[in-house]
Amino acid sequence: MQAAITPDDVAPLARGCAVLGTGGGGDVRAGALAARRAIQEHGEVPLVTLADLADNDLVVPLSGIGAPTVSHEMIHAEAEPDRIRDEIERIFGRPPAAVMSSEIGGGNGVAPVAWAARLGVPLLDADGMGRAFPEVQMVSMYVAGLPANVVIMTDVVGNVVTIRPVDGLWAEQIARAVCVAAGSSALMADYVLTAREARGAVIENTVTHAIAVGRATENAADPLAALREALDARRLIGGKVTDVARHTSGGFVRGTVTVEGVGDDRGRTLTLEIQNENLVAFEDGRALAMVPDLISVVDSQTATAVQTEALRYGQRVSVLAWACDPLWRTPMGLRTAGPRAFGYDLDYVPVEETAV
Amino acid sequence: MQAAITPDDVAPLARGCAVLGTGGGGDVRAGALAARRAIQEHGEVPLVTLADLADNDLVVPLSGIGAPTVSHEMIHAEAEPDRIRDEIERIFGRPPAAVMSSEIGGGNGVAPVAWAARLGVPLLDADGMGRAFPEVQMVSMYVAGLPANVVIMTDVVGNVVTIRPVDGLWAEQIARAVCVAAGSSALMADYVLTAREARGAVIENTVTHAIAVGRATENAADPLAALREALDARRLIGGKVTDVARHTSGGFVRGTVTVEGVGDDRGRTLTLEIQNENLVAFEDGRALAMVPDLISVVDSQTATAVQTEALRYGQRVSVLAWACDPLWRTPMGLRTAGPRAFGYDLDYVPVEETAV
Repeated sequence: MQAAITPDDVAPLARGCAVLGTGGGGDVRAGALAARRAIQEHGEVPLVTLADLADNDLVVPLSGIGAPTVSHEMIHAEAEPDRIRDEIERIFGRPPAAVMSSEIGGGNGVAPVAWAARLGVPLLDADGMGRAFPEVQMVSMYVAGLPANVVIMTDVVGNVVTIRPVDGLWAEQIARAVCVAAGSSALMADYVLTAREARGAVIENTVTHAIAVGRATENAADPLAALREALDARRLIGGKVTDVARHTSGGFVRGTVTVEGVGDDRGRTLTLEIQNENLVAFEDGRALAMVPDLISVVDSQTATAVQTEALRYGQRVSVLAWACDPLWRTPMGLRTAGPRAFGYDLDYVPVEETAV
Repeated sequence: MQAAITPDDVAPLARGCAVLGTGGGGDVRAGALAARRAIQEHGEVPLVTLADLADNDLVVPLSGIGAPTVSHEMIHAEAEPDRIRDEIERIFGRPPAAVMSSEIGGGNGVAPVAWAARLGVPLLDADGMGRAFPEVQMVSMYVAGLPANVVIMTDVVGNVVTIRPVDGLWAEQIARAVCVAAGSSALMADYVLTAREARGAVIENTVTHAIAVGRATENAADPLAALREALDARRLIGGKVTDVARHTSGGFVRGTVTVEGVGDDRGRTLTLEIQNENLVAFEDGRALAMVPDLISVVDSQTATAVQTEALRYGQRVSVLAWACDPLWRTPMGLRTAGPRAFGYDLDYVPVEETAV
């Protein structure tokens, strides 16, 4: 593993996080700008594993929460991390020893570099999803059964809200309401946890994986093939975006995207269901891939991920799908982020087992 | 001043608080039941003034927040006060020395007796409104310019939310969202303050005033006349409720009530605009009384207050209006809770100066 995040790592990290964002997690560009600037100001950010931390060291999982259409306008890289750190010190009597990305997908995978730099602590090579998910309780710590201890949120104007929820579902319900009241965007620490608690309850090595995914396509002759290999992904369809229905409500972006096949896929039509992230890919009423597996829309030429809010009529895209972390395929993982958790009356079928 | 709230004080306190509730503040019956039960269990509740407290003693202003149509179903007298106390100890390093009613009007004027009994601390003979108001920032502490330090909320399921708002308006916006997420009802501590800070920033003697108002009508030959005298109130109209338009949205009850005159008032029609509380009384497009002055609907025979949610077609009622505490007539008071604060394009005219 590399010892630190350098300025040269930011672009591939952003590129990889965009793909792992499965359409959401917030735009990576603002996060990448903030990360580069913070490294310039505060120096390279040490990258550590759980083995590098003492048992009682506090890990603070951070993420921006909100509708991506709003939150990609806000970087939360100025006073917000300091306010979260101050509140953690007030509550736990000691500052965090490391920052972790709550979700490696999208801008929330990149911006923690800036937050860690600003706080002067290392970044943990791990996250709480291995991807992006739209709801607060959809994190590995919840699936692993850690009691929800505290959620700390702060917004650009300076409000700080600390939630001691009875469980992760209440955390989501209250945090979402606070987020909407705060203008649909806030920086959030969810499940402040010790390194001991983090073992087995976070998804490890996802920062280095995201950088590797980003690097794979940088100078490749066939970026799409290189990306598929790096992800071990299947291509569900190659085609053209022919319809995008999208609206922002209750702090989420929801919608449906239609991709009509071109070339070998001519005559096929894929529809993608979205709640911030791509949830299910349907063809002729049959699900080809579904949460918690990852579904990403990428530019067919450059293999660059296209976030939900950037989808436009006429784009030539490929839709890729690949397996999620095994944690999400446990009964608790599927109950938390399987298709029924999003209201789809579908039994989960692993993406390796559906035929395209 | 009396030394303690006894079981015999609860009924007149409830009766007085209902009148001071100006239609809102939550139903007094649940609060009265809780107060009586808590006094039985924990003993009479000492009633103290600010002079009885040391400068650094903490006063915790408590209230139920939520739509009255929901909150009068919930008493918040069990574990909720303990959770608020625990959070105050965590934040301030010491427990509250006294409970204060955030709003003396309605159930929120009565239930603090139960909360104080349960916490084993005295009740302060004061409140933050001298009446009831629908929004969190509409308290004397805000008008007096105390910085918003902390808002602590807890709900029946056990969630605890602590808000450090940048100001009272943000406190209202976030607290309201949390309240709706928690099922439109929560127990709230707003502006935890020292006795020193409370001086000049709370409205004093309102508990004894509410009890006196309640007692005034108990055995009176003419309850309505006795009530008017106790309040120094004018009668805007005596008549019959002929229309009630009411809906619950965003955590508030909003609506319009029409009263058609009978007897001496035959031929006159009064309309009352409501947001939890009675805001403005109009006749022929002219405002006869308006916030922050108090407007209360009472039964014409018994002089018992009729809360907004209990208004029904055909009720014989009198609409009374009287002057608010002078604090509300300051520029900051009117900016906070004058007619324009509720969206009415009206210049404030004191109720003593409008002709009926």
